[in-house]
Amino acid sequence: MFEFDIQHQDGRARVASFTTPRGTVTTPMFMPVGTQGTVKGISPQELTEIGSQMILGNTYHLMLRPGEALVEAHGGLPGFTAYPGPFLTDSGGFQVMSLGHMRKITEEGVTFKSHLDGSLVNLTPERSVAVQEALGADVIMAFDECPPFPAERDYIERSLERTIRWLGRCLEVKSKDEQALFAIVQGGIHTDLRQKSLDLTLPFNTPGFAIGGLAVGESKEEMFPAVAFTTAGLPQTKPRYLMGVGHPEDLVAGIALGVDMFDCVYPTRTGRFGYALTDDGRLNMNSSRPRQQLEPLDAECDCYACRHYTRAYLAHLIRAEEMLGPRMLSLHNLRYLHRLVERAREAIQERRYADWAMTWAERYFKGTVPGWFQEAIQSGQAEQA
Amino acid sequence: MFEFDIQHQDGRARVASFTTPRGTVTTPMFMPVGTQGTVKGISPQELTEIGSQMILGNTYHLMLRPGEALVEAHGGLPGFTAYPGPFLTDSGGFQVMSLGHMRKITEEGVTFKSHLDGSLVNLTPERSVAVQEALGADVIMAFDECPPFPAERDYIERSLERTIRWLGRCLEVKSKDEQALFAIVQGGIHTDLRQKSLDLTLPFNTPGFAIGGLAVGESKEEMFPAVAFTTAGLPQTKPRYLMGVGHPEDLVAGIALGVDMFDCVYPTRTGRFGYALTDDGRLNMNSSRPRQQLEPLDAECDCYACRHYTRAYLAHLIRAEEMLGPRMLSLHNLRYLHRLVERAREAIQERRYADWAMTWAERYFKGTVPGWFQEAIQSGQAEQA
Repeated sequence: MFEFDIQHQDGRARVASFTTPRGTVTTPMFMPVGTQGTVKGISPQELTEIGSQMILGNTYHLMLRPGEALVEAHGGLPGFTAYPGPFLTDSGGFQVMSLGHMRKITEEGVTFKSHLDGSLVNLTPERSVAVQEALGADVIMAFDECPPFPAERDYIERSLERTIRWLGRCLEVKSKDEQALFAIVQGGIHTDLRQKSLDLTLPFNTPGFAIGGLAVGESKEEMFPAVAFTTAGLPQTKPRYLMGVGHPEDLVAGIALGVDMFDCVYPTRTGRFGYALTDDGRLNMNSSRPRQQLEPLDAECDCYACRHYTRAYLAHLIRAEEMLGPRMLSLHNLRYLHRLVERAREAIQERRYADWAMTWAERYFKGTVPGWFQEAIQSGQAEQA
Repeated sequence: MFEFDIQHQDGRARVASFTTPRGTVTTPMFMPVGTQGTVKGISPQELTEIGSQMILGNTYHLMLRPGEALVEAHGGLPGFTAYPGPFLTDSGGFQVMSLGHMRKITEEGVTFKSHLDGSLVNLTPERSVAVQEALGADVIMAFDECPPFPAERDYIERSLERTIRWLGRCLEVKSKDEQALFAIVQGGIHTDLRQKSLDLTLPFNTPGFAIGGLAVGESKEEMFPAVAFTTAGLPQTKPRYLMGVGHPEDLVAGIALGVDMFDCVYPTRTGRFGYALTDDGRLNMNSSRPRQQLEPLDAECDCYACRHYTRAYLAHLIRAEEMLGPRMLSLHNLRYLHRLVERAREAIQERRYADWAMTWAERYFKGTVPGWFQEAIQSGQAEQA
């Protein structure tokens, strides 16, 4: 039911098809985040039009409001949100840590105060799976702890061991064959702890693996070697999901290292703040410059905003605080990332990924490609062991 | 170029086609308001899909930001906003009165402080026409004064006389044949002043006439007799536009009295506030009731929101302050008004308008149809003199 079929490979980068009960998706892919049951400002029809494949839902937010029972009464997230394709839900663990107040972590699970009304809530591996079964996504995530950055090495180690015990409890109670549960590899930026987490996680042989505990405050110089080490240790034959990562340069570097799935609120959040993603870097639509520019946001983009509007018009919308402004910038930014992975897939298929990535980076970084990026691309060129 | 062809008549209500340079529209029609060059939250593609025909632009807002020169550089409002159909712009007069600070009205025009930055701005009949020519709408409006309610009878009389002189100045400078300028009949709720305004306005023989100075604070009992009196005095062969009016019950009553065109921010504004228009009256989506309702907002509606979402989902979006909530309620409310006038046109064509209107009102007002509404429908049944 969850077949992962690699079709092209170029160094460590790969193009694959991933079959889920609600449709087959092509990886590498970027997954838009629908935190509260909606990708902010964007309709399901638009998601389909811009090439979205799998949509993320957040267990923490949805269990608190509107509550998973209501989503389940709609037949799960597809019925609730009217997006007809595959979904992925996170376990709630990460957001309990970042949004819940006065959280207390024990072997049993996490107790926290809701950021909405201060009420006391428990989240355990068992409850996370139950909520995710009610939400009905195709891919669900193991309940894990994502330690903050920086954290004591010792804490990270005890935490990753507990995360393994929680993984066992998740798999114990999981009851639906039509949902794939992905395990999450932790270990921070420490190679030996990553290896330990891999050693403890791989035997569970879940249908996919996530790389957690990154993009939490460490530098890119620290993050990407950890990604490279982890993907090298993961089985070739299963999808790999780098959680919460989604700047354009992160996608291009991550794909080189063999990552298949990405998600991030970045494209919609930066769009709401008035920024547009392009091959020339991030355009600030709040500045006075675009206000007189009659060209499209991105002449190479095929999104609705780029096909219909000038920069001047979009800058006017932002300045006038018109809802259509954030809506259109969010749409464009999502399309930009979808198009970026489409181009990456094409380059992999034609076995010219490293060249394509470096050409893209020269322009994007305006001639000064950072060392961490170059190293990721180089590391990706080695055939995987 | 601006042919107005009446196709069906039932009492004073009529169905007509109105030809403009950017397309032929069918009246009666409701015109969505795109104050700042966008119908709040709604894309041009959606406007077309829900049956919008002519879109309103506001001269006051657009001259202040982004300035009419930028709109003209885009080829006018269709190029700027990407809505490919006909537009109508107001003259700026009404909003100078309601939004400008420290305004001073003289025979020459109006001086006011911009609500955006406090800068001093002049608006005269000549400047209003020049701005409207730059904005490039198909229908433009005479620069008039709309006295507040209540106002001294004497003031209304002097104001309407000046409005006539301003109308002359507008027509004097108007230079584009592809734009139709509509005159505006004033006179408040005073029958003799409405008659005086009609007597002074009609000789200008403009291609259409607007009814101004209403929906500014007077009761419906005061407003609708003034509408009835004015439409009776306007030529049968020209379109009639009741400015700033657009609650559902106002449309049904106004159409009975021979009004052809309506505009109002109401459907989008009330949508942003969480209210949905239906044949059963206005639904409050902020209340707890819809949060558990799995049926669509309006089972009889064919808009995207009603075809895809439950009330529970939409209520969740509103509660979670998600942008898709106001967007979808605005879309539904616009579609509701478009569908309402479509049903009105069908009833006129089948010569059963009064019956249809009273049946609609029985349900909408939950059995207690107000006197002013009944009187408007009755007054509409008389064949026009």
